[in-house]
Amino acid sequence: MDFMLDSKVYERKKEKLLTRLEEKEMEAVCLFSPTFIFNLTGFAFLPTERPIAYLLDKESEKMVIPRLEKEHLESREQELDEVITYPDYPGEKHPMKFVQDMIEEKEYEKIAVDQDGYGSGYGYFGPSLSELIDIEVEDIRLDLEKFFSVKEEEEIELMKESAKWDNLGLKYLQEETEPGLSEIEASMRASLKASQSIIRAFGPKYEQTGSGFPITVGYRGQVGEGSSLPHAIASNETINEGDVLVNGAGVEIGGYSSELERTWIVGEPTEEQKKYFELAVKAQDIAFDVIEAGKKLSEVDRRVYKFYEEEDIEETWRHHTGHGLGTRLHEPPFLDVGEDWELKENMVLSVEPGIYVKDYAGFRHSDTVVVKKNGVEILTYYPRSLEESTISVK
Amino acid sequence: MDFMLDSKVYERKKEKLLTRLEEKEMEAVCLFSPTFIFNLTGFAFLPTERPIAYLLDKESEKMVIPRLEKEHLESREQELDEVITYPDYPGEKHPMKFVQDMIEEKEYEKIAVDQDGYGSGYGYFGPSLSELIDIEVEDIRLDLEKFFSVKEEEEIELMKESAKWDNLGLKYLQEETEPGLSEIEASMRASLKASQSIIRAFGPKYEQTGSGFPITVGYRGQVGEGSSLPHAIASNETINEGDVLVNGAGVEIGGYSSELERTWIVGEPTEEQKKYFELAVKAQDIAFDVIEAGKKLSEVDRRVYKFYEEEDIEETWRHHTGHGLGTRLHEPPFLDVGEDWELKENMVLSVEPGIYVKDYAGFRHSDTVVVKKNGVEILTYYPRSLEESTISVK
Repeated sequence: MDFMLDSKVYERKKEKLLTRLEEKEMEAVCLFSPTFIFNLTGFAFLPTERPIAYLLDKESEKMVIPRLEKEHLESREQELDEVITYPDYPGEKHPMKFVQDMIEEKEYEKIAVDQDGYGSGYGYFGPSLSELIDIEVEDIRLDLEKFFSVKEEEEIELMKESAKWDNLGLKYLQEETEPGLSEIEASMRASLKASQSIIRAFGPKYEQTGSGFPITVGYRGQVGEGSSLPHAIASNETINEGDVLVNGAGVEIGGYSSELERTWIVGEPTEEQKKYFELAVKAQDIAFDVIEAGKKLSEVDRRVYKFYEEEDIEETWRHHTGHGLGTRLHEPPFLDVGEDWELKENMVLSVEPGIYVKDYAGFRHSDTVVVKKNGVEILTYYPRSLEESTISVK
Repeated sequence: MDFMLDSKVYERKKEKLLTRLEEKEMEAVCLFSPTFIFNLTGFAFLPTERPIAYLLDKESEKMVIPRLEKEHLESREQELDEVITYPDYPGEKHPMKFVQDMIEEKEYEKIAVDQDGYGSGYGYFGPSLSELIDIEVEDIRLDLEKFFSVKEEEEIELMKESAKWDNLGLKYLQEETEPGLSEIEASMRASLKASQSIIRAFGPKYEQTGSGFPITVGYRGQVGEGSSLPHAIASNETINEGDVLVNGAGVEIGGYSSELERTWIVGEPTEEQKKYFELAVKAQDIAFDVIEAGKKLSEVDRRVYKFYEEEDIEETWRHHTGHGLGTRLHEPPFLDVGEDWELKENMVLSVEPGIYVKDYAGFRHSDTVVVKKNGVEILTYYPRSLEESTISVK
């Protein structure tokens, strides 16, 4: 297995995208989203207030980047026809003016964009592209999301590789977890061990696309009563006998992650814990059974919600069944009653219906699946049974 | 010191913001940005494709949240007048329709927003607010950035506390770094030690606002030749004698971070390394000297750039002098020649001019400063001298 995707995969994706553009009579696409730029080119960078723009047409590929990314981009072997650098943001000449120059040089009539100019949570301000240029600009973000939601085989291979390291991470976490330990301490010990393993396994081939530990696995506040909050945030909670714990792993391999989450019980499970645990497993099984190419995503989520009604546990429902993933932790499509997309082969989704009993505990396994013609291929494979989901107490 | 900000700080900020709104004859503000919602209320959550909206006027505070955040919000002691939950995104009724209902109920004539509807990198789609409501909507994002760029004393206290843990992190990193070790391994060991210290120091008071290790300190690809790339990305690079290393720490305390970065040399520095190291320190000193309330940010960056010209090292320049920070890693204003904002007391900025010699090495210290009437208060305090920036080689 190669650690990063081969350049031929990106070439194939660009070809496919250009064909789609041609069908819509658009001559070029300009991307501003760091995610889409990475998905299409494999160029990973730390996005900040500084815009990056990527322009693709049948003849050429160009990029506008801040000065500080120039040598970094050169080191990544991107075969671009032109790289335009601007000094910095906001600069004496605004970065968007460089994007304007790059586009106007080509004399297009109509171009596609993923969004009408750059946007960033870091406090970027700037004009929209359509304010700057006289060329017709069409926002095709929805189409791009659909395009990237169907994964290439090689992308799925990276997500399979990711699932392996998720598994190692959770295994270490299960070994490290014991009553009296803080959730953060247990998470850190397991993350360190798993991370040390992955960098030794890959050696100099190991690369990240972001920052932080190679493998971060563990608890995030879903400890004891806190497990009843689906999106709790880590505090320094102590793990106690009798606690329900919900954990998670999502190792990034070449920019792609899978998602693996398990519910564990510390010590001998009570009858009530058993009941909810089994209901959560059953809800997930129903989703696995229903998913297949050609169905609507809404249908899956509706079927899962019906299970909550049948079991009379609607008050334990907190969120939809799952979400797309790949180079982002969450991405379209969503396994939600309101999602009208159709399931397509090689979409990758998390399947994670949860049962949350207020002031008591939460129960959720999350697995990553690939949509297939007649069902699903489950990429993550950590044991799901109650017997294998207990933390023994000495 | 309290670990999280006291609710009275948020009350004060809300009062100030309401006064500013009143001056502009706006009756309410609706916030969609997770950062601004946190800055104003202290409610930290994991932002996803699911919108959260916060509405503030003189009489009341309301929020629209997804169902899965309800009990989490209740546990955070936010004193809201109304909390409206929607099932999930996209849902059978789109989340923005719930926001519409919340706003229309109040019969405003004109409201302020931080942005015209929700936005998310996770593939959210939805109508803008102004498409949905008949009330006049004014985008005040620039004004909000200016408002939040001047920190409260209590916020600065948290950033001072952050600087202390940055310092511990870098100290451990300097102790752990040695030739033959991988950059990731050294970073992980130091992060673990520092993180174990912080959770033991704060005990059950310790809380996060995000996820991951409490303290992540270390290298991010700026090792050896890689140090010449200001925004390199970590690979599993081995540290060697003679390498220049650029590292970083930015510990989050109650949602606030400082930024501390140092350049170290492994073994006895060469004359060339000494020269560039001292130039980088000098560039930073110039910035410290020039910054004071009342000046333009552009003036500082221009003065620093002049130093590159004076020393005839313009080809080693890669980026502006620094950026604002607080609850984000980067935020306005930017210490950039194009930034026309004025420096105000209690703005907090990173000061980090760098010197990058292509295919050789990079040199950058970054410190966090508070703008004062007649200069700066430097919050970070790790040694900056060459003598104290070497890694001894046995």
